[in-house]
Amino acid sequence: MKKPAWVVDKERNRKVEAKETIWLFGLHAVRDALLNPRREKLRLIVTKNALDKLAEAVAASGMEPEVVDPRKFSAPIDEGSVHQGAALEARPLDWGSLADVAISGQGAPLVVLLDRVTDPHNVGAVLRSAEVFGARAVIAPRHHSAPETGALAKTASGALERQPYLRVTNLSDAMAELKDAGYVLIGLDGAVETPLAAALAGAGTRPVALVMGAEGPGLREKTRETCDVLARIPAAGGFGSLNVSNAAAVSLYAAVTR
Amino acid sequence: MKKPAWVVDKERNRKVEAKETIWLFGLHAVRDALLNPRREKLRLIVTKNALDKLAEAVAASGMEPEVVDPRKFSAPIDEGSVHQGAALEARPLDWGSLADVAISGQGAPLVVLLDRVTDPHNVGAVLRSAEVFGARAVIAPRHHSAPETGALAKTASGALERQPYLRVTNLSDAMAELKDAGYVLIGLDGAVETPLAAALAGAGTRPVALVMGAEGPGLREKTRETCDVLARIPAAGGFGSLNVSNAAAVSLYAAVTR
Repeated sequence: MKKPAWVVDKERNRKVEAKETIWLFGLHAVRDALLNPRREKLRLIVTKNALDKLAEAVAASGMEPEVVDPRKFSAPIDEGSVHQGAALEARPLDWGSLADVAISGQGAPLVVLLDRVTDPHNVGAVLRSAEVFGARAVIAPRHHSAPETGALAKTASGALERQPYLRVTNLSDAMAELKDAGYVLIGLDGAVETPLAAALAGAGTRPVALVMGAEGPGLREKTRETCDVLARIPAAGGFGSLNVSNAAAVSLYAAVTR
Repeated sequence: MKKPAWVVDKERNRKVEAKETIWLFGLHAVRDALLNPRREKLRLIVTKNALDKLAEAVAASGMEPEVVDPRKFSAPIDEGSVHQGAALEARPLDWGSLADVAISGQGAPLVVLLDRVTDPHNVGAVLRSAEVFGARAVIAPRHHSAPETGALAKTASGALERQPYLRVTNLSDAMAELKDAGYVLIGLDGAVETPLAAALAGAGTRPVALVMGAEGPGLREKTRETCDVLARIPAAGGFGSLNVSNAAAVSLYAAVTR
């Protein structure tokens, strides 16, 4: 019997993920990853200078660093990346299932869902804010979202090692699962009238999921329909809109101070 | 009689500014600048393709574009800048005096002061949020702050043309002037206990100036002392801190919804 398409797809994804590695770079990101026991580390390329600064973290990780001449620093990272003489090849973190992290997880019952936010700097900044405000997870679809990369890690400023970033096969399914677990799904949409504060007040003490779209397209139709309520961050004038990381920070603040 | 040092300094600054030009790039930033009658425009370099997209704005500006081959696009902007075939040389905007903009200006009596925030992307993002929340101005010291550049304009996503960005000689003097005009100066500082919401409640209906430092150093001693009150954005855990643009967005939201 032929396997159904979704099984083939799932198996292919698993194989791709098993092989997938990422290159983290910069002293801060590399140190945080070295000190993270959950991070599977493969290769460490450093200059002598960087090694001096990372000595403790390298010792703690038990890794054998490859010390290179600064003029021959050759890790496969984007040109122009500020690597500060340190690059680490590693596997993406495995945060477990949505149920583990968002439903029975630690911290306030608060999560952020990103509907096709592809810019790694935006996602990195959202992870950073999510950690500050104690959200349980940032959840995004596996496809059409910024993957875990060195650039994302750098913007996240250490949060990538600590803040669950879950990539799910289907965002609507994840939303349904959260809803079943008691979450109120609040979609951010500049075109509606309900202010965010009113939507949050309506959620009372129930767990909250903040659902944000990418700049420009916003929430997809299906995502919008799956939300319990749509709300807007009140703006003063006719011009401009917040970038997605600022909108996420504002929404998280409003949620934790409600 | 010899001129005092501060007069010499002021005259030198004025001369430098008179000569100073900036290169804006990218379709969005160039279009917004072309359509801004207050923007003094000097030179427009575009590809044929970009010119088609900017035709209306170019016509409205009355400028004579220099149409170049995409392979020979040669505006003096940073390599790797996403110029989309459009670059505009212009003068920085003159927003007038602090008194004009922040005290008798339009919009809610709300301003943001940035104490030595040098990253153009952060300042650009703050301008964008300041416009969304209707702040009168973003104010920064002339030295040790991100100058008006193409990179800043791009992150500001049009807000640079509309949102006053005032560079003052001395930040403490500007703070004193705002205080005299009735502003309550709230300094953001992660190390204090007062929550931002409490500080804003204390300000009641008086005008508010939100004072933010750079990541790492935070507010300078003198800036901190000149504030009326220091306050923190409440964070959940022991880890991490907001980046300055996210902290600004959160503070502006808290101020306008108080």
